[in-house]
Amino acid sequence: MINFKELAATYKTPLYVYDLDYMSAQYEELKSAFKGRKSIMAFAIKSNSNLSVIKHFATLGSGADCVSIGEVYRAVLAGVPNYKIIFSGVGKSDDEITQAIKLDILYINVESEAELGRVELIAKELGAKCRISIRVNPNIDPQTHPYISTGLHDNKFGVEIDTAKRMYIKANNSEYLDPVGIHFHIGSQLTELKPIYESAEIVADLVRSLQNIKIELKFFDIGGGLGVKYKDETTITPYDYAQAILSTLKGLDLTVICEPGRFLTANGGYFLTKVLYEKRNGDKRFVVVDGGMNDLLRPSLYKAYHKIEAITESLTKLSEADVVGPVCESGDFFAKGYLLPTLEHNDLLVIHSAGAYGFGMGSNYNTRGRSAEVAIKGKEVKLIRKREEFEDLIALEKEYLDN
Amino acid sequence: MINFKELAATYKTPLYVYDLDYMSAQYEELKSAFKGRKSIMAFAIKSNSNLSVIKHFATLGSGADCVSIGEVYRAVLAGVPNYKIIFSGVGKSDDEITQAIKLDILYINVESEAELGRVELIAKELGAKCRISIRVNPNIDPQTHPYISTGLHDNKFGVEIDTAKRMYIKANNSEYLDPVGIHFHIGSQLTELKPIYESAEIVADLVRSLQNIKIELKFFDIGGGLGVKYKDETTITPYDYAQAILSTLKGLDLTVICEPGRFLTANGGYFLTKVLYEKRNGDKRFVVVDGGMNDLLRPSLYKAYHKIEAITESLTKLSEADVVGPVCESGDFFAKGYLLPTLEHNDLLVIHSAGAYGFGMGSNYNTRGRSAEVAIKGKEVKLIRKREEFEDLIALEKEYLDN
Ligand SMILES: Cc1ncc(COP(=O)(O)O)c(C=O)c1O
Ligand SMILES: Cc1ncc(COP(=O)(O)O)c(C=O)c1O
Repeated sequence: MINFKELAATYKTPLYVYDLDYMSAQYEELKSAFKGRKSIMAFAIKSNSNLSVIKHFATLGSGADCVSIGEVYRAVLAGVPNYKIIFSGVGKSDDEITQAIKLDILYINVESEAELGRVELIAKELGAKCRISIRVNPNIDPQTHPYISTGLHDNKFGVEIDTAKRMYIKANNSEYLDPVGIHFHIGSQLTELKPIYESAEIVADLVRSLQNIKIELKFFDIGGGLGVKYKDETTITPYDYAQAILSTLKGLDLTVICEPGRFLTANGGYFLTKVLYEKRNGDKRFVVVDGGMNDLLRPSLYKAYHKIEAITESLTKLSEADVVGPVCESGDFFAKGYLLPTLEHNDLLVIHSAGAYGFGMGSNYNTRGRSAEVAIKGKEVKLIRKREEFEDLIALEKEYLDN
Repeated sequence: MINFKELAATYKTPLYVYDLDYMSAQYEELKSAFKGRKSIMAFAIKSNSNLSVIKHFATLGSGADCVSIGEVYRAVLAGVPNYKIIFSGVGKSDDEITQAIKLDILYINVESEAELGRVELIAKELGAKCRISIRVNPNIDPQTHPYISTGLHDNKFGVEIDTAKRMYIKANNSEYLDPVGIHFHIGSQLTELKPIYESAEIVADLVRSLQNIKIELKFFDIGGGLGVKYKDETTITPYDYAQAILSTLKGLDLTVICEPGRFLTANGGYFLTKVLYEKRNGDKRFVVVDGGMNDLLRPSLYKAYHKIEAITESLTKLSEADVVGPVCESGDFFAKGYLLPTLEHNDLLVIHSAGAYGFGMGSNYNTRGRSAEVAIKGKEVKLIRKREEFEDLIALEKEYLDN
């Protein structure tokens, strides 16, 4: 049991708390589900990019799925070996491509014909041969929130099967490109196995048809996306997930790459915030807390549900309340109509499932410094990011004020 | 005419550009609309909190409407006199209240009975008498986006009329509180005059009824909210706005405080981003650019429209495209189905109306550094915030990596 009250007293609020032991357990469960095969779990850094969290996964043997050169540098700094780093993303700048090639990472995930052209050009300029993978868009509906659905043609991600095939042929003929992998990722917070299986089948078929023309790939990159339980979702077990994927790979000698984000981190994170006031407007009850949408954007951006636990002496009966932050937007809320007892100034709310897409989407909106981050491992509690102070917020603009 | 191409070449992209001359003109137009009365224009810092922008308005005589102690410090640092600074917001921490009292700002806008209690307690501890205003929620539908509508009981903001009255009586009887103002703000991007007028009437009536019980207020704070033209909106003129407000104040000797944000800054700002690639998935055309939702969140969060201007040699005819960024979310877009010519790598897109709620809502999601900001005044162009580098992003967590 994590002593949230003590953590809030020591590190103040708002505060992010990560349970690294939970994250290890998730990692091991997923890794071992693929044990029949060579596999690399490449932690999707975007879900939680704190250096110490990345390092924790690196220590377990994890690779890193990165979507900007900044994420690549985070991975390197945190000790992920370059040969386990993947650089994905729909819009890579020339500069990012250059640096990724120089770092000799495992491969660059290419997402369009135009990008393949840029990568080739840059590799040529550097006199390098760049390992690539191509992200295929299987045009399968993942049945998740539109903002995190990525596997339909309607989405910007990946390329169609036919385009992919053409690109592989081009890459295979190029002196500067080495096509080693194939990649798909149809969305995040997936709770249905069927679309994943169908996508894997489509992509595995493409691998076979490439074999027929002597293009031999080594890596079958299944992306991330495994859903977690925020409320009452029925999720896919790692075992079923792995079995579904592996069943499509019969006869193929491929290393499976998996890019889990949310599955590893979401339920290992908690966001702690203190009650400032209760208030009523007409019939409506509000609990105003010291954390805001600038700290945790998911409720506002996706209408995401997060379980809220109140730590209070209050013994009153539960009634519905909107839990809202101090930011000057009506969109600044953590929950609407949530059942809570009457709360006092300084009571603590623990917002669950905040380990993925939490701190990383944080901003300084309303000139609010971002929270501190704390990690727990065994009996040890450790600060892993300092609270942002006013001086940090103005550091890059202060010098221009007086001239 | 701003030379966007030159700016992009000099300062790189993505980049925010502010036209301070435009902002001055907006300020003067609004200020002079209220010329029949004593008035203070208190720039709503949340709309654009760059220190140099605040300083620019301060030089014109502007005050500052702040919603966090960080914003108060920005105002002070940028040269806004303390007696023109207002501290609003639905969730102020004890620490913020303490600092605001110590700084002896114009007044604290109080948003609940519970908060009034905290302010009194803290003022007492400090041996101070704190000037306050109360934010009234007039329960009027402002007819704007639900996330920026703030004047209904359904919203967390302000207190009901009856509650307000009770609070004024309490404040007036307190040794530690000095009720000097009354405040309302029913929403942002308002394009209908009627709800504003109706709210002002309700609030002015409350002022009169307070007069009857010998509570004499000095400031009538009408909030911000004046809408601007993003696409084809018919907006309210400052003259009509002022006339509507002033017509409710007959016989009252009050200084009008106005808290404009968007009106002053929105159309004085541009977001410059470069084309990385064009791509197609099925029938769908995508223009992938180097700026993302972490730079400008409004399209993703509010489905907000921003005019996009392409700076290109391309003479092809226009066709529909989604303009999307490099962030790994389908919600990362600037426009959907926007008519654009065929674009080349390194062509420039100018995203208009980006001066309000643009940079300030920016994040480091996907480990992307925030853009630089540049200001133009007359013939002078000046960097006002440095581009964020990787080292800036990890500054607060790096030291915890190795122990
Ligand atoms: C290519 C890719 N891989 C992995 C992930 C991680 O997804 P999740 O956190 O759902 O596992 C994402 C998320 O958007 C992604 O786009
Ligand atoms: C109290 C208050 N004043 C002023 C503003 C500024 O609004 P706008 O930018 O629409 O003028 C806001 C915006 O949310 C606000 O909440």
